[in-house]
Amino acid sequence: MHKELRAGLIGVTGYTGMELVRLLAAHPRFRLSFAASRTEAGKRLGEHYPFLEKLPGANLVIGQPDARQAAARCDLVFLAVPHGAAMNMAAELRAEDLAVVDLSADFRIRDVAVFEQWYATTHSQRALLHEAVYGLPELYGEAVANAKLVANPGCYPTASILGLYAALKHGFISSEDLIIDAKSGTSGAGRKASVSTLFCEVHDSFRAYNLGKHRHTPEIEQELSAVAGVPVRLSFNPHLLPIDRGIHATIYAKLNGEHTLDEIHAAHVDCWKEAPWVRVLSMGCLPETRNVRGSMFCDIGLAVDPRTERLIICSVIDNLCRGASGQALANANLMCGLPVDCGLAQAPLMP
Amino acid sequence: MHKELRAGLIGVTGYTGMELVRLLAAHPRFRLSFAASRTEAGKRLGEHYPFLEKLPGANLVIGQPDARQAAARCDLVFLAVPHGAAMNMAAELRAEDLAVVDLSADFRIRDVAVFEQWYATTHSQRALLHEAVYGLPELYGEAVANAKLVANPGCYPTASILGLYAALKHGFISSEDLIIDAKSGTSGAGRKASVSTLFCEVHDSFRAYNLGKHRHTPEIEQELSAVAGVPVRLSFNPHLLPIDRGIHATIYAKLNGEHTLDEIHAAHVDCWKEAPWVRVLSMGCLPETRNVRGSMFCDIGLAVDPRTERLIICSVIDNLCRGASGQALANANLMCGLPVDCGLAQAPLMP
Amino acid sequence: MHKELRAGLIGVTGYTGMELVRLLAAHPRFRLSFAASRTEAGKRLGEHYPFLEKLPGANLVIGQPDARQAAARCDLVFLAVPHGAAMNMAAELRAEDLAVVDLSADFRIRDVAVFEQWYATTHSQRALLHEAVYGLPELYGEAVANAKLVANPGCYPTASILGLYAALKHGFISSEDLIIDAKSGTSGAGRKASVSTLFCEVHDSFRAYNLGKHRHTPEIEQELSAVAGVPVRLSFNPHLLPIDRGIHATIYAKLNGEHTLDEIHAAHVDCWKEAPWVRVLSMGCLPETRNVRGSMFCDIGLAVDPRTERLIICSVIDNLCRGASGQALANANLMCGLPVDCGLAQAPLMP
Amino acid sequence: MHKELRAGLIGVTGYTGMELVRLLAAHPRFRLSFAASRTEAGKRLGEHYPFLEKLPGANLVIGQPDARQAAARCDLVFLAVPHGAAMNMAAELRAEDLAVVDLSADFRIRDVAVFEQWYATTHSQRALLHEAVYGLPELYGEAVANAKLVANPGCYPTASILGLYAALKHGFISSEDLIIDAKSGTSGAGRKASVSTLFCEVHDSFRAYNLGKHRHTPEIEQELSAVAGVPVRLSFNPHLLPIDRGIHATIYAKLNGEHTLDEIHAAHVDCWKEAPWVRVLSMGCLPETRNVRGSMFCDIGLAVDPRTERLIICSVIDNLCRGASGQALANANLMCGLPVDCGLAQAPLMP
Repeated sequence: MHKELRAGLIGVTGYTGMELVRLLAAHPRFRLSFAASRTEAGKRLGEHYPFLEKLPGANLVIGQPDARQAAARCDLVFLAVPHGAAMNMAAELRAEDLAVVDLSADFRIRDVAVFEQWYATTHSQRALLHEAVYGLPELYGEAVANAKLVANPGCYPTASILGLYAALKHGFISSEDLIIDAKSGTSGAGRKASVSTLFCEVHDSFRAYNLGKHRHTPEIEQELSAVAGVPVRLSFNPHLLPIDRGIHATIYAKLNGEHTLDEIHAAHVDCWKEAPWVRVLSMGCLPETRNVRGSMFCDIGLAVDPRTERLIICSVIDNLCRGASGQALANANLMCGLPVDCGLAQAPLMP
Repeated sequence: MHKELRAGLIGVTGYTGMELVRLLAAHPRFRLSFAASRTEAGKRLGEHYPFLEKLPGANLVIGQPDARQAAARCDLVFLAVPHGAAMNMAAELRAEDLAVVDLSADFRIRDVAVFEQWYATTHSQRALLHEAVYGLPELYGEAVANAKLVANPGCYPTASILGLYAALKHGFISSEDLIIDAKSGTSGAGRKASVSTLFCEVHDSFRAYNLGKHRHTPEIEQELSAVAGVPVRLSFNPHLLPIDRGIHATIYAKLNGEHTLDEIHAAHVDCWKEAPWVRVLSMGCLPETRNVRGSMFCDIGLAVDPRTERLIICSVIDNLCRGASGQALANANLMCGLPVDCGLAQAPLMP
Repeated sequence: MHKELRAGLIGVTGYTGMELVRLLAAHPRFRLSFAASRTEAGKRLGEHYPFLEKLPGANLVIGQPDARQAAARCDLVFLAVPHGAAMNMAAELRAEDLAVVDLSADFRIRDVAVFEQWYATTHSQRALLHEAVYGLPELYGEAVANAKLVANPGCYPTASILGLYAALKHGFISSEDLIIDAKSGTSGAGRKASVSTLFCEVHDSFRAYNLGKHRHTPEIEQELSAVAGVPVRLSFNPHLLPIDRGIHATIYAKLNGEHTLDEIHAAHVDCWKEAPWVRVLSMGCLPETRNVRGSMFCDIGLAVDPRTERLIICSVIDNLCRGASGQALANANLMCGLPVDCGLAQAPLMP
Repeated sequence: MHKELRAGLIGVTGYTGMELVRLLAAHPRFRLSFAASRTEAGKRLGEHYPFLEKLPGANLVIGQPDARQAAARCDLVFLAVPHGAAMNMAAELRAEDLAVVDLSADFRIRDVAVFEQWYATTHSQRALLHEAVYGLPELYGEAVANAKLVANPGCYPTASILGLYAALKHGFISSEDLIIDAKSGTSGAGRKASVSTLFCEVHDSFRAYNLGKHRHTPEIEQELSAVAGVPVRLSFNPHLLPIDRGIHATIYAKLNGEHTLDEIHAAHVDCWKEAPWVRVLSMGCLPETRNVRGSMFCDIGLAVDPRTERLIICSVIDNLCRGASGQALANANLMCGLPVDCGLAQAPLMP
């Protein structure tokens, strides 16, 4: 029998916290041993989340966010608090020598000046920044396995980077003139009381937001620059979908010379053939967000527009699972010596 | 290492077939060894269902529905074909001595005259009717474990019977004057091309259908009569919800004398305390269909209306998982000597 | 050329205020001359509601709620503020001799003790209560035409009373044992920032709330008692639909002796044949909320369940238009000597 | 009193037919005098469309599509039948000297070779092609007023052309490298029974389709080439939204030299200041599909991404009203000497 691993969760009330609770309830090795929330402390977790009743974790009583307590009760902590707050809490947890997966943006951007500009805040934990590993398992799995602090990628960056990786790597496309038209389910907007995300403000409607200005832009550029070997500057443009979960990134890239769809498709299939979660769809097929609902999959569909000499890549993930909490758990798996997909092999919920 | 069990699925293209494919992909003991469909034969299952790619079952090639072939390749067969067609196919499979879980209505009604009246068809397999066990695990688990042919309950009956069981058993309510106002997600209407279930005909709307005339009525009455010990005649009234999955049954019953909500609630908690999937919500809480999405749970909420001396029971399930394919798999577990919840312990998908 | 009528709106930011703005923009006789909101004062209405730009009212600047100003600028005022606040504001407006249509519950319940019990508040304007007319045009059109203060009916009561009126009037059904299972679109929950009505908390889900305890219960009982000629006590049970607009009330009633559906249907058709907005559907047809979307219609479908000797009535309205602001405008029409349907003859938005 | 104009509708059962029925019911001058459908002939229109009961047109009996009958009963005919079928029916109607607004694609593309290539069909009415006027009122209003055959624009082209018109006209952007990422509500997919547009296949999901290959591409290029004065070749990429109505086109264009958002915004406001239906949103505001629901508005939001030197234009319409039937009615207004917005001034339905 394998030793049980004790996982802590600081920040239970948001959608990423909720998703971690869901995934940990089905994990064969991690047990949720500590859950913290300033506003809900004192409640049983099952009382706060009725969907959890009669499942593992339901009877855990929510506590206060406290690094000492976390250290006493956990082997690893998931940090699901807002950026800004996360960096200091991460420092406290690291001071207790706890392994940390931080779901916020605080340790994703390696260039502190870029971080401080886009996030309009001072980074108070610069030393930790160097220790942090960017937790995209397909690209940094080995480093994650040796890390004590993982910066869990953003949802849009996960879809965008996985979508563009193979085409940039193979040089099929120019690293200039990239446009990402991204659409996200509303869970990406968080679980705070707000008029703009009320049911009647989102349902049966569609809108863009933060065109050219979203904070995930520098994160995507940082990682794609590393792939391309040259600085990448791109246009990232998010939209809000009237669905619960799912990101669909439609990516427009200029072809670098003549490449057929056959050639590009074959290279993608080959690039991801060992990856458990990246699925390159059959030629001519395009992805749907529901096909990855509740799962770790990233579905990639390819089209060539010969009239305008562009490659169009559709990259689809579940923003809460693959784009946040599931990926955090995959990183935790690696940090604890487990297979990356331990407890993360469920089929998407269809329909 | 446990022996792998080989499961066949006849009828893969409907939503119940799709759900079985999803659940079997995550089952630790059953392997989908045979999948049949008249219209899709020859395709890989992953080609038909892109959500399944890179998961167990994706590379299975769909075959023709054929009892011989099923016998050669399966230990047990799930029958997900329309009523009428199912009874004869079940007979052929039983003739090959295969264990069968039939998801249609063909073997649910023990009184053949009642069946023939409500379904307006002749029952061609009356002998088999006596062999069939009604597969509601909480009520008939032991009989299911010894059965070779299980009639998998309907979705509405599952929610209705579990919702009313404890209150009828304890005599808290009259067995007369029962009204079930039931609401179902649109996957309950099946996956046939039809104008009336197009997105734009269902979305942002709500309607009743088949008031007082739905074919699940005699099935509910049959089972509740057995619980009550007297013939139950009730009014069952379904509605169509603009959601994918979920049934919410609001059940109105006359109180039998004076009973407090405290007393009734305690009796419900006690009745279901050993049941892994029936969750009686805390006093004052009411269920939501999303809290059971993708799972086997039946969530029950209770209210007493002292002004009109009624008990109001809300009973909520996922119509595809608990109300069809998950329940079929639970029955298959029992028929094969596995724990009832083997492969069925996943947490609901929230949100 | 007819004289323009000047309408004021106090409370513009909620969904009922928004709907009044929409309807007034298309009204041939009323002009929105005054709009007030504590939180949005100073903004152009079109800035607050971009859907209104280039339409009548867009350039009106939102002011503070003030009876004097209202008196200077309006012939009639719509009051779309929360109950409790409305009663005092109504008194101030009446003191200025303004005609008032109050969309809150403050003047709907004629028995002040009943009001104070259900709303858990003291009624500070009892004198005005006697002056107020309950503004259901089909029942009280004449009184409304002579009123200076109209209590605009609640959304659930509008659907419930119109649904039950003819059957009670004709004595087809018992006035006892009435059950109303009502389902409302989420706009009925208002436009306040709140976690429980966020998109991801409502979408793809369904739940009941306030079973047996909703404040619209005494309002329905008051009006149906008047119709039946005896005190009616009924069970009213609301649910939340993942749609923007629409109420579907499924009403269960015991038949009073033998009545065929033919007979009952004919009586309903006859009862409502002069009513511009009550539509009794053809025999066998059931209503859908979308068929009344954005309109004043109340669609009624009838079914008899001979097995349980019940009449089942489905009554469907748009909760924002017919159930609130459109009805308020119909009342304003009557109070100002216009035809009841002036500016309210639009077809439902389908799909 | 003005003379009533008699409008015919051939093809009542699709969503564009349904929308014309809705709009004509509220039109002050047109009366629906003839409605034809092969499959529904013999039914009352109100029987086929219950939302229409008690409204003008409800009692019209649906007839067979027949040019003689149309000529006897109409002044103008709307043709809402599939492309291919429309061209011949239009010829028959023109032979009867009827004014025709054709909602199909058959007369939109002036270059018959381009039409035949993209639609993979032979054009059987080339002579009529020269007579047809492209019915985008803002661009061709005068020609429409003198036309007897109007080719009603496609939904995507309407949003795309209006979105790009001012920026191209002013030379703010390059006519090369244009990318249109368009998203459409599901009513755009039509009302035919089909698995792929069933509720459960669309709801809570999102997908792209026909990337780079949609038949609206040459229509957009034709009109934008005329605006730019040079041939425009662009990349047009549609997606399917889980909403009933609405198109959101996100348009990416390379800035032609240095232009500030202020300058570009002011030019757009000026360009459309006389247009009743094109609304340029305030600086910094972005459109939402619901803000135009059920209306003729085209809402335009602008953003400049200085990092990538692009202008991003969001252009939003209601695909059924502005993108099809409402626009058809606007053209009919012009053809009959009425103001373009006669009967088309309703406010959008919010929420």
